Amino acid sequence: MVKGGRSQEEIRRHNLGTLLRHLHRSGALSRSELAHRMGLNRSTIMALTAELSAAGLVREEQPRDTGRAGRPSLVVRPDPRLYVLAFDVRVDRLVAARVALGGRILDRREAVRRRAGADLEYVVEVLSAFGHELRRTAPPDALCVGVGASYCGMISRADGMVRYGPNLGWVDQAFGAELGLRLGLPVLVGNEAHLGAVAEHERGAGVGYRNLVYLHGDVGVGGGIIVDGRLLDGERGYGCELGHMMVNPYQGRPCACGSRGCLEAEVGEQALIDLAGRSGELSGREGWHTVVRAADEGDAAARDAFHRIGDWLGIGVANLINLFNPGMVIFGGMLREVYPRAEAQVRARIRANVLPVSREQVRLRVAGLGDDATLVGAAELAFSRLLEDPLEVLAEMRAYERRTAARRAAGHPPVPGGAHRRHPRGCLNR
Amino acid sequence: MVKGGRSQEEIRRHNLGTLLRHLHRSGALSRSELAHRMGLNRSTIMALTAELSAAGLVREEQPRDTGRAGRPSLVVRPDPRLYVLAFDVRVDRLVAARVALGGRILDRREAVRRRAGADLEYVVEVLSAFGHELRRTAPPDALCVGVGASYCGMISRADGMVRYGPNLGWVDQAFGAELGLRLGLPVLVGNEAHLGAVAEHERGAGVGYRNLVYLHGDVGVGGGIIVDGRLLDGERGYGCELGHMMVNPYQGRPCACGSRGCLEAEVGEQALIDLAGRSGELSGREGWHTVVRAADEGDAAARDAFHRIGDWLGIGVANLINLFNPGMVIFGGMLREVYPRAEAQVRARIRANVLPVSREQVRLRVAGLGDDATLVGAAELAFSRLLEDPLEVLAEMRAYERRTAARRAAGHPPVPGGAHRRHPRGCLNR
Repeated sequence: MVKGGRSQEEIRRHNLGTLLRHLHRSGALSRSELAHRMGLNRSTIMALTAELSAAGLVREEQPRDTGRAGRPSLVVRPDPRLYVLAFDVRVDRLVAARVALGGRILDRREAVRRRAGADLEYVVEVLSAFGHELRRTAPPDALCVGVGASYCGMISRADGMVRYGPNLGWVDQAFGAELGLRLGLPVLVGNEAHLGAVAEHERGAGVGYRNLVYLHGDVGVGGGIIVDGRLLDGERGYGCELGHMMVNPYQGRPCACGSRGCLEAEVGEQALIDLAGRSGELSGREGWHTVVRAADEGDAAARDAFHRIGDWLGIGVANLINLFNPGMVIFGGMLREVYPRAEAQVRARIRANVLPVSREQVRLRVAGLGDDATLVGAAELAFSRLLEDPLEVLAEMRAYERRTAARRAAGHPPVPGGAHRRHPRGCLNR
Repeated sequence: MVKGGRSQEEIRRHNLGTLLRHLHRSGALSRSELAHRMGLNRSTIMALTAELSAAGLVREEQPRDTGRAGRPSLVVRPDPRLYVLAFDVRVDRLVAARVALGGRILDRREAVRRRAGADLEYVVEVLSAFGHELRRTAPPDALCVGVGASYCGMISRADGMVRYGPNLGWVDQAFGAELGLRLGLPVLVGNEAHLGAVAEHERGAGVGYRNLVYLHGDVGVGGGIIVDGRLLDGERGYGCELGHMMVNPYQGRPCACGSRGCLEAEVGEQALIDLAGRSGELSGREGWHTVVRAADEGDAAARDAFHRIGDWLGIGVANLINLFNPGMVIFGGMLREVYPRAEAQVRARIRANVLPVSREQVRLRVAGLGDDATLVGAAELAFSRLLEDPLEVLAEMRAYERRTAARRAAGHPPVPGGAHRRHPRGCLNR
C-alpha cells in the first residue's frame, strides 16, 4: 500500500501532536528548544503553542532564574490538570493509577488478585471501582484524557478483546468494551509485554534506541519488539510472541500453549524449580522466589538451575538478535531476576550463535522501570490518541466529562447501567 | 525519539513522491483516481502533476477511447524515458538490467559467475561493463535515475559495504562504493533476501499485505520481513537473518556461520542430499536439482528427505509466525522448490506450534516474481531515492549525466580513473 497525500489539516494535527509529544516525553521545554527539536521555525512553534495553550493542553511560563543575563525564553509545559487512567491486569494483582500528562504517577491502587475466579466480571469490577475512585479524588479541575489497560494475554487490536489469556483462562473476553462501559470512557487495551516494551523505549532503559527487543517474564514469557521506533504488532496485534519460539524440539518441556519446547516452557518457573531439584516440594511464584534466594545464598543446585535456563534463554535471545539487529535487549518482569544470575550463559550463546556483525553493538539490560514497566506502558497507550490528535481528543474527553457531571448532578450513578448499555464511542482499540 | 515537525516544503516533497510512487506502482492513473487514492482534492493533484510533468517525470495523455460518452479525464503516466540500473550478485551468476519507471524490465545481461576467484574486482568489472553497455544502448533521451544492487550477504546500510558475504568469501568489501566509482553514479546496495521481500511486497505475491515474511533459499537461507509496510532492517541493516535461527540445539548440522543447528544448515542443499542418502555421490546446486528430480519421479528416499527438511522449515516458519503475526509467508529462491514438496510438514508444524489466534489468517505462498524477485528488488531500491524526493534526485542525476556526456565529448572514458578517485556523492546507502 502506498501512503496517502498530506493535507494542510493533517500537517497541523501532526505538528500539534508532535509538539505535545515532546513535552510529554521531556517535560518543560523552551520554545527555541522545541523549534530545534522539531526542525520548525520559531513563529510556527509560537502559533502551535498558542493553539495548544488556548485549548488547555499546555502552559507557558517564565523559567526559573537561569542566572544568565538577558530576557529568558518562555518555557512550555504540559498542563498538569490532564491525566489518564492506567490499569494493569497481572498474574498476581490488579493495579490502577492516575498518571499526569508528562508521565508522573499521581496516585495508585492495588489489589491482590484472586487466583481462582478471576473472571471478566470480577476483574472489571475491581478495576472500574479503582477508576471511579481515582477520578473522584482527583482535583476538581482535572480532566481524564484517556484510559489504557495492560493485560497478560493476546489482545485483538481492533476491539481490545482478550483473544487468549491462558493465565486467567480467558478466551475471547470483551475486556476493553466491558471496562469502558463501567467507566463510561473509551478504553484501549494492550498486551503487557508490548506495553512494557513501549514504556522501556519511551521512558526506561531503551530511551534513544530505535530497535529493541523486550522480554517479559511472568507465568509465561512475552515479548515486545520495537522496530524503527514503533511497536511490532503484526497483522492483527498478535506479534512478538517470542515465548512460543520453539528452542527445544527434542526433549522439550510441555508448554501451556499445548506445544513442547517453547522458550517460556524452558525458562519458566516450573523449569527453574525442577532443575533446582525441588519439584514437588516447591511450586508457583513463591517456589520460584525460594530458588532465587537459594541461588543467592550459594546453593549449587539452584545456581546450576539458573545457568541451565540461561542457556535456553541465550538461544532465544541469539535468535532474536539475528532477526532484529536490535541496539538493545531488555529483560523485564521475572526475567529481571533471571538475567543477572545467568548472564554468562546468555552471553556465551550470543557469542556462539549471533552473526558477528549483528552482535557488534547490542547491549543487554534489565528493565529500567522495574515492576512498573507494564503500568507505565498502559499509561502511554492511554495518551496515544491525545498525542495523535490533541484538539479533537480533548474535545471528545470533555464531552464524556460533561456527561458524567450531568448524571452526578441528577443523582444518577456516573455511568448508565441496564441490559441495553451502549459501548462508549472509541472503545475500539484503534 | 519523537518525530519532527512537518514544514510546507516537506509536505510538497512528500506529496510529489507519493504521487510518483502511485504511478510507479500502478502505471497510468487518471487524475481523479490519484485524488481518490491520495485523499487530496483534484486541484492539489493537478498542481502536483503539473510540477512533475514540467520536470519530465510524468506525462499527461488522453486515455484510449473508453467507449463512454463525455470528455474523459486525462491520464497521468510515468515518463518512459526514466530508468534505473539494477544489479544482482547471485551465487551462480551476475545479472544486470535496465528497468523503467513503472517497473518494466527493458533490457538485461547475465554472466555465469566464476565459482572461484569471484573477488570484488571481478564482480565490479563484470557489472560495470554491463552497466555501461545498458546505458550506451538506451535511447538517447533516456535518463538513469538510480542504481541498485542486490548482494547475497550482510550489507551495511550506512555505506553499502558487504560486511559478511560467506558465499563469495567477502568480509568488509566496499562493493557499493567501488561499483559507484566505476559507473560514475551513486549505488545503493541491499541484501538479496531483503530486496526479494520488498519486490514481493510491491509487485509479487505479497501485494496488499502490510506484514509479511519472505524466506529466500540460496546456498544459505536469508530473510526479508515487512513490518507494517516497511522492511525490517534493524539498527544497522543486518536484521532478518532468519537462516541463523537455531532450530536444532542437540544434533544440529554444522552451519557456515560457525554454529550448529541453524535453520539454513537444516534445510540447505547438503542437508537434502545427505537425507536423501546421496552424500558423497552428489553435491552443490546440481546435486540438489538431482534430488528434486528424483523426488518428482517417485524416489522414496528423495521424497522423505524433503519431508524431513520440511519439518525443520516448519519449525522456523512457526516461530516466525508467532513473532511477526504476518498476513503472508512467502518462499523464494530455492525454497520455491522445497515448499511445494514439504507443504504438509510445514503446515503440520504451524498447526502444532503457532498460537491459534496468530494462525487464523496467515497464507503461505511461493514467490510471485519467481527468479527475478531479487533483481526487481534491486530496481525498487534504485528507485527509492527518486520516489522520496523526485525533483531533487532528478536534478542530481541529470548533473551526473551531463558530466558523463562532457567526458565522452572530450574523448575521455565515461568516469575518471586513477588513485585519487573520489566517491560519487550519494554512494551512501541512505
